[in-house]
Amino acid sequence: MQNVQQPQKRKLSDEIIAEDEDYQRDPEHPRNLIPEICRLLYSQEAMTGSGGAISMRRNDKIYVAPSGVQKERLQPEDMFVINDDGDTLKLPLNGKICRMSQCTPLFLTIYRLRGSECVIHSHSKRAVLATIISSGNEFRISDLQMIKGIYKRTENRNYRFGEEVVIPIIENTPTDPELQENLVKAMENYPDTCCVLIRRHGLYIWGTTWQQAKLMYECYEYLFDIAIQLKQLGMN
Amino acid sequence: MQNVQQPQKRKLSDEIIAEDEDYQRDPEHPRNLIPEICRLLYSQEAMTGSGGAISMRRNDKIYVAPSGVQKERLQPEDMFVINDDGDTLKLPLNGKICRMSQCTPLFLTIYRLRGSECVIHSHSKRAVLATIISSGNEFRISDLQMIKGIYKRTENRNYRFGEEVVIPIIENTPTDPELQENLVKAMENYPDTCCVLIRRHGLYIWGTTWQQAKLMYECYEYLFDIAIQLKQLGMN
Amino acid sequence: MQNVQQPQKRKLSDEIIAEDEDYQRDPEHPRNLIPEICRLLYSQEAMTGSGGAISMRRNDKIYVAPSGVQKERLQPEDMFVINDDGDTLKLPLNGKICRMSQCTPLFLTIYRLRGSECVIHSHSKRAVLATIISSGNEFRISDLQMIKGIYKRTENRNYRFGEEVVIPIIENTPTDPELQENLVKAMENYPDTCCVLIRRHGLYIWGTTWQQAKLMYECYEYLFDIAIQLKQLGMN
Amino acid sequence: MQNVQQPQKRKLSDEIIAEDEDYQRDPEHPRNLIPEICRLLYSQEAMTGSGGAISMRRNDKIYVAPSGVQKERLQPEDMFVINDDGDTLKLPLNGKICRMSQCTPLFLTIYRLRGSECVIHSHSKRAVLATIISSGNEFRISDLQMIKGIYKRTENRNYRFGEEVVIPIIENTPTDPELQENLVKAMENYPDTCCVLIRRHGLYIWGTTWQQAKLMYECYEYLFDIAIQLKQLGMN
Repeated sequence: MQNVQQPQKRKLSDEIIAEDEDYQRDPEHPRNLIPEICRLLYSQEAMTGSGGAISMRRNDKIYVAPSGVQKERLQPEDMFVINDDGDTLKLPLNGKICRMSQCTPLFLTIYRLRGSECVIHSHSKRAVLATIISSGNEFRISDLQMIKGIYKRTENRNYRFGEEVVIPIIENTPTDPELQENLVKAMENYPDTCCVLIRRHGLYIWGTTWQQAKLMYECYEYLFDIAIQLKQLGMN
Repeated sequence: MQNVQQPQKRKLSDEIIAEDEDYQRDPEHPRNLIPEICRLLYSQEAMTGSGGAISMRRNDKIYVAPSGVQKERLQPEDMFVINDDGDTLKLPLNGKICRMSQCTPLFLTIYRLRGSECVIHSHSKRAVLATIISSGNEFRISDLQMIKGIYKRTENRNYRFGEEVVIPIIENTPTDPELQENLVKAMENYPDTCCVLIRRHGLYIWGTTWQQAKLMYECYEYLFDIAIQLKQLGMN
Repeated sequence: MQNVQQPQKRKLSDEIIAEDEDYQRDPEHPRNLIPEICRLLYSQEAMTGSGGAISMRRNDKIYVAPSGVQKERLQPEDMFVINDDGDTLKLPLNGKICRMSQCTPLFLTIYRLRGSECVIHSHSKRAVLATIISSGNEFRISDLQMIKGIYKRTENRNYRFGEEVVIPIIENTPTDPELQENLVKAMENYPDTCCVLIRRHGLYIWGTTWQQAKLMYECYEYLFDIAIQLKQLGMN
Repeated sequence: MQNVQQPQKRKLSDEIIAEDEDYQRDPEHPRNLIPEICRLLYSQEAMTGSGGAISMRRNDKIYVAPSGVQKERLQPEDMFVINDDGDTLKLPLNGKICRMSQCTPLFLTIYRLRGSECVIHSHSKRAVLATIISSGNEFRISDLQMIKGIYKRTENRNYRFGEEVVIPIIENTPTDPELQENLVKAMENYPDTCCVLIRRHGLYIWGTTWQQAKLMYECYEYLFDIAIQLKQLGMN
């Protein structure tokens, strides 16, 4: 990770300062949307205990939430701004001492492999339970209208009612580099998926736009919840 | 569907502009109520992932929410205004590019068959689970005080405690025209019902007023929830 | 029920008008508290579908919510004011056409028998499930710290951890006069209780103050929820 | 407990008045944070029925919520201020008649043994159920990413994914002095833990900062919830 004191970086940083001031006028600026969606997910008990994070891209800049903080209290000024190589372009504006989300390398990997504009990582209990009730390395579901909200990438369209959504489950690992390797493999082996589940950990979901990422997050959560409740009812 | 550029339509559209401006003074105008109730249902996890929609009628105009959008972010200006034939009288006021809810033909069918003023379509998980725990083509429930909140149409009164509420379940179909056909049949075969369930999809509920539709929506959801929990408890 | 046009009543009504204007300065006036607590219970899914109602007494006046309306939308002006005999002292201030809560005779009975200042009636799903998992005519629970929040009337103190809370369950009836008879019997047979459950219907809870009624409502709901979850887990 | 009328105490009290006025400018003052977090826990049904309390320390002063009140209605002025010996430095500023939380001796014990700055006591249903599904005197959980949010005290670091979190469960007792004795023993026997569960009662959680206490509270709740749901699903 390079230092922002390099001349070239400082120039870029100056441009960004101007652009970043827009967030006070633009409610859909990543600096505003990330805290807003974090609060929403917190209220759904999917971003408590500092677990999870959201990242968004706007042009050449990638916004990342800080690590280890109360996600429902994030402010627009708390974001890190980095580039595709992970270089820090801008630290939190408020001078708070904090680290960038530890998921940052995985966010960058997803941006690189899929050209997304938004990645959501959560420790959602439904996602975790979905990985535990699925004995193999896949969560499979079909015959629910809600799968029509999921994007089928290789065919550039959403799933149809009669089709099956297959989500890869990767094993959790003690360290992030290993996890990243597993994530890449899963994304390569499942070119259709917009979601990777991590066993007993959570999920990563991405979308071409932040709206698509958020809507699909809600659809996936819905599908996990139905699967869990059907299991509790002893049905399919 | 006809084009709004026709002279006759433009005249009607002018009248509507005047009437529509009322929504800024009238909190119970459909332009205000639809977003408000969508937000409420979203907060109950019954309108996430862009699934579901609400339509209301006021005199000759029918208001319909757009399709594929985040329902908790709807604004009064986002509504489509159509007539009983489905002709577009007014596009969203904000110039946003979006489609009318895909449920529109089903909304129109319900308005035509039942003379309602409000139709709620949701992908409620409770409704979906209710269709899965019901093996046949009906969801039946009785012996709960809450059924007194449900309207029994052929007798023009609400259900009594000792009576049974029967809700038809139609099979989900890949395309909407087929679904509409099934919906019409169910409404004809069950003249008492104010609700049709769609297997593994959700429900349609309608009422003479928006208040009745919303109150009955809550009663039906309550009944589904009790039925699901009793099933989990191994009881009836 | 007598008419407010009688001279004596009009005098009382005049006094009340003066007193009632206080509600705009007093956030704990029944006209403010009833809508506030109704909204709270609605948000907990315990007052949806127009089911349930709250009544409070202040000196000689009893405030009662209207019937059949959306409880989360109640306004201070929507209340009926009656006396101990059920005579209407004041209709809703806004001229809305509506009926007084159908539970009013039961509210009056509880005020008469127990000298309470607040009665809460809800169709809470937890209360309904508690009556279904209890085969006999009592819901019994013990060995939970939360029972220390329940008032034991004959001993003028709250329950202790080692004691058992016993709540009578009365059968639901098609009409209210019968229900009232059952309620009176249960209150006589269970002089300690501040709650009566109605099978497959809901509950009535009362308290010496509105704070006590609300706090006990929350404690009872907590106890029902634990009992239901333990049953789901196959434990006690 | 000594009286605030002693000269020495009055001097301290004067200093505190000055310092306490800061709370109107400082949103993270204990007088503001305690009500805010109580409201949050109430909304999660973990602080209803007046059960539970929060205490925070700032320098030499310890802030404690009052007992037996509606925790979601607490105001900054409602707090008691005491010192490490439990002497009252300041009564609620609003002159309301109320008692200090009955948990105060346990709060003081935890401050003394662990040097924390915040203690949360709740009657959380998940905590209570966790103590019931655990037959022995420990709640054990592992193999969940969320345990990385829990602090392992003797090693001055957070738990790792492969490790097991062990939380002692003490039996509930009719009176507080006995409970305190059990709490001290559990804290001595489990030097790593930041949480003690009380059978059929609830939990105490503490942290070096209020942020750590709150974040760990959320992590523990998450772990309890997963354990309960896995038990319902018949899985581990």
